Amino acid sequence: MNPLRYDCMRLEEVATELFTRVGVSEHHARTVAQSLIHADLRGIESHGLSRLPIYMKRIEAKVIELDQEPEMVKQEGATALIDGKNHLGAVVGKVALEQAISLAKQAGIGFVGVRHSNHFGTCSFYAERAIEQDQILLVLSNAPESMAPTGGIRPFLGTNPMAIGIPAGKELPFLLDMATSVVARGKIALAAKKGEPIPADWAIDQDGIPTTDPERALLGSLLPIGGAKGYGLAMFIDVLCGLLTGAACGPGVQSLYENWTHPQNIGHVFLTIDVQRFWPLPVFQSRMDEYIREIKSVPKKAGIDEIMIPGEIENRKMSEQRVHGVSLSPGIAQELEQACITYGVDWGKARIGS
Amino acid sequence: MNPLRYDCMRLEEVATELFTRVGVSEHHARTVAQSLIHADLRGIESHGLSRLPIYMKRIEAKVIELDQEPEMVKQEGATALIDGKNHLGAVVGKVALEQAISLAKQAGIGFVGVRHSNHFGTCSFYAERAIEQDQILLVLSNAPESMAPTGGIRPFLGTNPMAIGIPAGKELPFLLDMATSVVARGKIALAAKKGEPIPADWAIDQDGIPTTDPERALLGSLLPIGGAKGYGLAMFIDVLCGLLTGAACGPGVQSLYENWTHPQNIGHVFLTIDVQRFWPLPVFQSRMDEYIREIKSVPKKAGIDEIMIPGEIENRKMSEQRVHGVSLSPGIAQELEQACITYGVDWGKARIGS
Repeated sequence: MNPLRYDCMRLEEVATELFTRVGVSEHHARTVAQSLIHADLRGIESHGLSRLPIYMKRIEAKVIELDQEPEMVKQEGATALIDGKNHLGAVVGKVALEQAISLAKQAGIGFVGVRHSNHFGTCSFYAERAIEQDQILLVLSNAPESMAPTGGIRPFLGTNPMAIGIPAGKELPFLLDMATSVVARGKIALAAKKGEPIPADWAIDQDGIPTTDPERALLGSLLPIGGAKGYGLAMFIDVLCGLLTGAACGPGVQSLYENWTHPQNIGHVFLTIDVQRFWPLPVFQSRMDEYIREIKSVPKKAGIDEIMIPGEIENRKMSEQRVHGVSLSPGIAQELEQACITYGVDWGKARIGS
Repeated sequence: MNPLRYDCMRLEEVATELFTRVGVSEHHARTVAQSLIHADLRGIESHGLSRLPIYMKRIEAKVIELDQEPEMVKQEGATALIDGKNHLGAVVGKVALEQAISLAKQAGIGFVGVRHSNHFGTCSFYAERAIEQDQILLVLSNAPESMAPTGGIRPFLGTNPMAIGIPAGKELPFLLDMATSVVARGKIALAAKKGEPIPADWAIDQDGIPTTDPERALLGSLLPIGGAKGYGLAMFIDVLCGLLTGAACGPGVQSLYENWTHPQNIGHVFLTIDVQRFWPLPVFQSRMDEYIREIKSVPKKAGIDEIMIPGEIENRKMSEQRVHGVSLSPGIAQELEQACITYGVDWGKARIGS
């Protein structure tokens, strides 16, 4: 049996309506809905509508606040600092992105630091928007503790993700979206649920020993990509997003799921580059197209159909799901349906063919 | 027997003198000498004076050119583009770094792209200089092909390194310097020389199969850190340093050792952030100190003496070797002595106690 498919536009209406029911303005509700559905469209279910219930719960618990808009604390030269005022992460992120794009249009490059934000969805949501405006974006975020520094046995750093977007012409754009940990904690939780072992390079147990037992891994610490290199990258992201902006850093970043008394106080950084400072847009685009075609034509390993560029699998999935509907796993669909029942929103209209 | 030690200041004189013998101005010769000795001081012998002979050879073969100074092609807003005019990489890199620092002092952030450059030593050389001026630096460089894209079996990307420097106060600064490959090709060549196997995650053979045989690995392709993540990072660095700046990219970047007809045409990117746009310097410094102390106090795995921050091992080595002399392996010392004999430079004076 194929999983059920849902129309992305109608899902957006449903999610927007749900957020307005807990007091989010229609405009901001739509932004957050779009950021979550962006992830589902790309096949990243862990960052999609599966997060809607927890966002709503945090708004109701007032650990996400709606009474103040994100505010520009400072804008000087090609930099800006934004205080998210503990609003929804995607609302804060969109304001920061727009500021960074505007700075890059003026100065060729823009750097926007953000403090007092919340979980802001996938980094790729912002990279895609920068690409649409012909800009290169590097977006960084810190996250709650889950990863020990190399040599350590207690989490200190988050999975601290980054995304990089680079526009192309006829080819799909470059869109790298990655955590600095080997995998997300969610993948280990899933293996634990299924009672399956995990690869030994995903996590360490509480004694710092690499483990294939997901239960032991969940009590331990995630491993960074490339050993000390990934640890260094995660620390760099924490320092920029947290320490430099004035957001929380290290274990000071609060959990989305477990802390109900304090704001997350996540920090982000948005760094934009206007490609038109270096090349007329059509020239840059055709050079990117040529580069992408060249890398895709490298001889392939037996059994590999095609060399993919970063984001290509997800971009293709998005195109397909825009047309044929977004597939949601039954557990997530059920949770959303439950939320719709609670708040009196029509869930049925999102179903394709309904 | 302890390896021989050499005085770093006297080594600088010797290396500077050697470069002047092949026509490099005293000023530029000193810059390149400093960049190489910086690496040796930090214990990164692969990027230290071991490169001096090949730099000299390329100058003599006129594939590195000395007749034109690096030139600013464009400076607009917070960005600049520099044409290295095929001069020595460290000469070009220093010009670019200074421009980036000056831009960040004006605009809070600076972005300098560089084309027509050469091998510029370790990225940490530039990060250290930015730290001395209280700036955060992200420096990127592309490099000759050695790494296949994920799924491919022929090299396309270089080991494309990056360094990140962040100043601290009383603590040693954060200085991450890393290739996007798991290891440098040189480590595999060394294993081949010793007839020792290599870990299976270092490289693939010509069929794309991970190999522990260094000979097969040398015919194959290096592996990136974190699988497709490292491939994405290496491609990002290539696009920024090569495609955006107008330098060569992908397999267009020429080998330092094997190509004697074309310039390398390496590209770099220098991105600076002035921390004082965000915090008064002493506040930022003490916050960094506190952060570093906190991460270093995370409980340690049994057998681990100390949690290190990126660059800490190298920074300590540098302090020690500044005082007690730089150790050079006998093969490298011999090559340098040979160059000194050829060019009539006194090698003996670099020896400590000589």
